[in-house]
Amino acid sequence: MRILVFNAGSSSLKFGVYDIPRGGGLVQMQQCFKGSFDRFGAGGCDYRAGLDEGTVTRAPYTDLASATQAVPDMLARAGITGIEAVGHRIAHGGAEFTAATALSAEVLEKIHALTPLAPLHNPANLKAVEIARDVWPDLPQWAVFDTSFHLTNPARAVTYAVPQHWRDAGLRRFGFHGTSHKYVAQRAAEALGRELRDLRLISLHLGNGASACAVALGESIDSSMGMTPLEGLVMGTRSGDVDPGLFGYLSRQMGLGITEIEDALYRDSGLKGLTGSSDMRDVEDRAAAGDADAQLAINIYAYRARKYIGAYAAAMGGLDALIFTGGIGENSPSMRRRICDGLEFMGLKLDHDRNMAVELGAHAAPQIQAYGTRVNVLVTETAEQLMIAREVAQAIRTPQGEALRIPIAVSARHVHLSQCAVDALFGPGYELTPDKPLRQKGHWAARERVVLHGPKGEIANVAILGPLRDRTQVEISRTDGFALGIDAPVRQSGALDGTPHIRLIGPAGQYDTNGLIIAARHIHMNSADAQQIGLSDGDTVNVTLTTSGRGLTFGGVLIRVTDNAFTEMHIDTDEANAAGISGAVEGELSGEAVLRST
Amino acid sequence: MRILVFNAGSSSLKFGVYDIPRGGGLVQMQQCFKGSFDRFGAGGCDYRAGLDEGTVTRAPYTDLASATQAVPDMLARAGITGIEAVGHRIAHGGAEFTAATALSAEVLEKIHALTPLAPLHNPANLKAVEIARDVWPDLPQWAVFDTSFHLTNPARAVTYAVPQHWRDAGLRRFGFHGTSHKYVAQRAAEALGRELRDLRLISLHLGNGASACAVALGESIDSSMGMTPLEGLVMGTRSGDVDPGLFGYLSRQMGLGITEIEDALYRDSGLKGLTGSSDMRDVEDRAAAGDADAQLAINIYAYRARKYIGAYAAAMGGLDALIFTGGIGENSPSMRRRICDGLEFMGLKLDHDRNMAVELGAHAAPQIQAYGTRVNVLVTETAEQLMIAREVAQAIRTPQGEALRIPIAVSARHVHLSQCAVDALFGPGYELTPDKPLRQKGHWAARERVVLHGPKGEIANVAILGPLRDRTQVEISRTDGFALGIDAPVRQSGALDGTPHIRLIGPAGQYDTNGLIIAARHIHMNSADAQQIGLSDGDTVNVTLTTSGRGLTFGGVLIRVTDNAFTEMHIDTDEANAAGISGAVEGELSGEAVLRST
Repeated sequence: MRILVFNAGSSSLKFGVYDIPRGGGLVQMQQCFKGSFDRFGAGGCDYRAGLDEGTVTRAPYTDLASATQAVPDMLARAGITGIEAVGHRIAHGGAEFTAATALSAEVLEKIHALTPLAPLHNPANLKAVEIARDVWPDLPQWAVFDTSFHLTNPARAVTYAVPQHWRDAGLRRFGFHGTSHKYVAQRAAEALGRELRDLRLISLHLGNGASACAVALGESIDSSMGMTPLEGLVMGTRSGDVDPGLFGYLSRQMGLGITEIEDALYRDSGLKGLTGSSDMRDVEDRAAAGDADAQLAINIYAYRARKYIGAYAAAMGGLDALIFTGGIGENSPSMRRRICDGLEFMGLKLDHDRNMAVELGAHAAPQIQAYGTRVNVLVTETAEQLMIAREVAQAIRTPQGEALRIPIAVSARHVHLSQCAVDALFGPGYELTPDKPLRQKGHWAARERVVLHGPKGEIANVAILGPLRDRTQVEISRTDGFALGIDAPVRQSGALDGTPHIRLIGPAGQYDTNGLIIAARHIHMNSADAQQIGLSDGDTVNVTLTTSGRGLTFGGVLIRVTDNAFTEMHIDTDEANAAGISGAVEGELSGEAVLRST
Repeated sequence: MRILVFNAGSSSLKFGVYDIPRGGGLVQMQQCFKGSFDRFGAGGCDYRAGLDEGTVTRAPYTDLASATQAVPDMLARAGITGIEAVGHRIAHGGAEFTAATALSAEVLEKIHALTPLAPLHNPANLKAVEIARDVWPDLPQWAVFDTSFHLTNPARAVTYAVPQHWRDAGLRRFGFHGTSHKYVAQRAAEALGRELRDLRLISLHLGNGASACAVALGESIDSSMGMTPLEGLVMGTRSGDVDPGLFGYLSRQMGLGITEIEDALYRDSGLKGLTGSSDMRDVEDRAAAGDADAQLAINIYAYRARKYIGAYAAAMGGLDALIFTGGIGENSPSMRRRICDGLEFMGLKLDHDRNMAVELGAHAAPQIQAYGTRVNVLVTETAEQLMIAREVAQAIRTPQGEALRIPIAVSARHVHLSQCAVDALFGPGYELTPDKPLRQKGHWAARERVVLHGPKGEIANVAILGPLRDRTQVEISRTDGFALGIDAPVRQSGALDGTPHIRLIGPAGQYDTNGLIIAARHIHMNSADAQQIGLSDGDTVNVTLTTSGRGLTFGGVLIRVTDNAFTEMHIDTDEANAAGISGAVEGELSGEAVLRST
C-alpha cells in the first residue's frame, strides 16, 4: 500500500510517499520519496527532493497551488506509481474526529466549522486539501488530525472551570501535536522494549510550536496546549500560559482590543517577545555572550517545561520515560539539561556524555539518562508524515469483519480478597462460604460481606468474589468513589501498582490495602469466539450497545482471551446507567470498528 | 505593643487586637480581642465579638463606615486601651512594597495607582483605610500587602512571555495570599522543629480564593495566582488557568467583550461555573449523592491542585512538606486525600486515620502523612490578622541602628576541591601549590587551574581556592552558567544538596561532581563587628552600595559570623557589574533596613 502525505504551511509544502511492503505491517512502513517547497515568492521557491535530503534548487512555483500541480510529474519521473490515497494533516478536529477520516464533503464542512478554534491553522489546511482534490480527483483524500490523540483525555483535564453556557458553546481543552506525541510515544516504547500500555510517558515536542503531553498506559491523558495552540509552554512566537486578567489590563491601560491582544500573543510573544528572535539557536548564542534578555528567555522556557514535567508526573502517579523531540528538543543538549536539572527527586537525571553525543536520523531514539536512574530519557526525531501515512493505511486496511453479539454483565462494587485480608477481616484461618456461582467457571460470590471506609463516608454490604487472590483488589464505580471520598483510577484487573489505599472493615477487624480501582470495561472471550472474529488477547475494540432505542459506543474495550471463558462484556454500574441498561443485555461488537492493540 | 488589625471586605469587617507582652518577641504575640460585622444591609448587620467566638447578635450598622465608628466604644468597654497602630490588609502592592509600610499620603496614592491590577480588591481596601483614618486620626496606619511575600520570586517565575512594551507597562506575575502563605510556612517550620530556610515547602491556601505557593529555603519562589487573583487553581467563583484563546473565541462566537468575559471569570466561574454552587461543602455532598457536575468539579479542583504540587516540587528540586490551609484545606479530609493520592512517587502519602482526625484551633498544626514517608503533610488554620499584626509590630520595632561600612570583595568564578577531585584532576596524591593568600585567614589561591565543561561550552583557566574541602564546590556567575549551558542555583556555600553536576578537566583527567552553584551574596563578619551592630550568625540584612553616584541595594544578604573573620561582603561578577563596581569598594550596611532572620 502506497500513501502520499501532504503537509502544507503558509509558505511551504512538504510531501512524502510511504510504502507498506506486500505482506508487511504498519510498522514496516517506509518512506520512498520526499520533497519540499519553501519560501514561495514572486520569484519562485526553494525546492528539495529525494530521500537523501538532496540539494536545494530553485523552482518556478510561486504558490502552493502551482507547486502541488507539479508533484505528479515529479513522482512519475522518480518512478513512483500506484498511490492509493492522499493523507493530510489537519490541525483541529474538535471533539468528533478520533481517527483518520475520509474527506467527504460533509467532513470538509465540519472541519471548516471548526475554524473559530484554530483560526490560523484550519483554513490553510483546507486550502491544501482543495488543491490536492483538483490535482488528484480520483484518489481518496484522508484527514489526520492533530487533536485526535488527545481525545482520550479525561474530563478533569479538558474542562475549564467556566460558565456552563460557554462550555456548551464548545469551550474546552483539545491539545495539538497529537500525531507527533503519538509517534514518539510509540517509538519510545519500542526503543525501550516495553509495551506502550504499561508505560507512563511525558513527551516534550519543542519546535517552533511547543507542547508537552502526558501519555499514561497508552493514552494521552493531558497536554499543554488547550482549546487553541496558544496555551502551555513558551513557543517561538506564542506566549503559552498567561493570566486571563491580562486582557482587561491591556484593554484598560493601553486601549487594546481582543483581536490585537490575541494577534500579539500568537505572533509577537514567546521567545520573540522576550528577545526579539524566535530562533532558540540565536537566543542560546546571545545568552552565552551575556545578553540578559536571552538568558531570561532561556530560564523561562526551561522552567516552564520543567514544571509541566512535574505536573504530569503528578497527574500520572509517576514517570517511566521522558521524550524530547522537535527542533529544540532534538538539537539543544543544554536546553535538555536545563529542563531536567533538579528532577533527581523523581528519579530523573541526565548523563552528560550521552546527552552530548545524541545522534539522530534513521529513526534513532538514543537514551540519555544517567546509568542506574529510574526514569528513561530519550531523544528522537518526530515523524509526523510517517505517522499520517500509517494512520491512513490503518484506516484503509481495517477489515470489515463480522459483527459478534455478546452478552453484557454489569459489575456492582465488589472485592477480591487475599488470605491475609480474610484473616484480618474475619479472623485467622477463616474460610469464605461460596454462595452463588458466577458465569465465569470456578468463580463465585461469597455469603460474607465487608464495609468500605473512606475519608468522606462508608459503603456497607459489599460483595466478596472468590476464589481468593494473591493481592486484594477493590472494584467500585466512580460514584462510589465520591461517596468514599477517594479518587479511584480506571484500571485493568490486576494492574494495581500505584492505586489508592482503602480501609475494609469486617466482623473481626479492619484491613488497609491499596488496590482500589474502577475496573476498565473489558470482554472475557473464549478462544473459539476470538478466533471466529479474528481477535487476540490484548486487542481493543469498540462496542456499540443498542438498548431502549439509544445507541452508545464504548471505545477502547480490552479483549481478554482464555480457553474456557464465558464470552461476555463487563461494565460497571455507572456505565450501565449511561447506556440505560437495567437487566442483562447484549452488546454488538461492531466489526467495522475493530482496533488492533499495536 | 498593641496593634489593631482591620480586614474589610465588600460586605463584612473583621478586626482584632494583638499584643506583645512586655519584653516578649514577635512569636509571643497574642490576640486579646476580636470582632466581626457580617452582611451589612438596610436592617443592620450580624455582629460577633470576644475571643471565644461568642454568639451572633444583631447590630444597627448598615455599612462599613458606621460599623467602624462603633469600634472604639467596643474596645473601651472591653478594657482595651493603648493601641499603637492600625494594620490593614491591602491586596495589591505591586513590585514596590516588600514589607509593612506606613500609610502616608504618598503611599496611599501609589496603592491607588495599582487599582488596574486588582480592580475589585484595592478600592475596597483603600476605603477601609480612609474610614479608619477618620476614626483614629492620631494612630499610625500601616499597610501589609498580599503580594509582598512573593516579591522574592525570580524573574523566570514572574515574567510572561509577552511583548516587551506590555512588560514595560507593568504586566508580570505577582501572586497573592502572601500573608497567609508566609504565616503557614513559618508555622510549619516551627511545628517540624526545622529552620524555614532549610525547607522546601508547598502551601495550598484553599478557601473561597485559592492559591498554591512554593517556598524554597525561606523564600516564596512561585505562586499560582499571577498578575491578578484570577490565574491558577480553581476557586469558588474564579476560573483559575484558562487558554488565552478563550477571549477571541467568546468574542467571535458569542459577541462578548473583554469586560463581560473578565467579569464572568471572576464571578461566575470556578466551582460556581461548574456546579452552580461556590461552596465546596455543597459540591461534595452533591457529588456523593451522584451529581455528575459536582463529581467533575471535584475532580478538576483536585487534579489541578495535584498538578501544581508536582510542578512546584520540580521547581524546587524536591519537597519536604506540604501544608493545607483555608476553609477547604482545613476541613475537607476527602479533598486532601484526592489531591495527595498518586504522589507516592515523590514520597508523599497520607495516613488515613491522621487525615480523618485533624483537630485545629489554638494554632495547632497536626501532621497527616503516613508513618515513614519522606514528605511531611500538615494542616493548619491560617492567621492572616495575626501575621499582619506581627509585620506591623516588626516594622515599628526595627531598631534605627548605626550604619556599618564594610569592604566588598568581588568573587570571580572559582572551585573548592576535595582530595578526591585533586587526585582525579592532577594525579593521585598530588598537592596543590598555594600561590596568593586571600584576606580570610588561612585561605589561598592555588597556582593550578582547571577547565569547566558543560553542554553548551567550556570555561578554561578557572581558579582553585584552598585549603581543600570535604566536598567539591564550583562557584560561577549566572552568565558563566549560560556559557556552560547549565542552570546553577543561587546557594549559600556548603548547601550543595540537589545542585547540578559539572565536569572539571585537569591535566591528569576529568572529574564529574555535583556542587555547581552561584554563591549567594553574604557577609563574613568577625564577632566584634557583629556585636557592635547587633547582628548574629544567620541574620539577613539589606546592603546599599554607593558607587559612581548610583545606589544599589542588595536585599537578603546573609551574615556569617566567625571569631577571626575579616569582615567583608562577597558578591559575584554579575552583581558587581550590576552595581558598576570595578575595583574594591565599600558597601554601606544600612542600619534602618536590618531584618532579623526569624
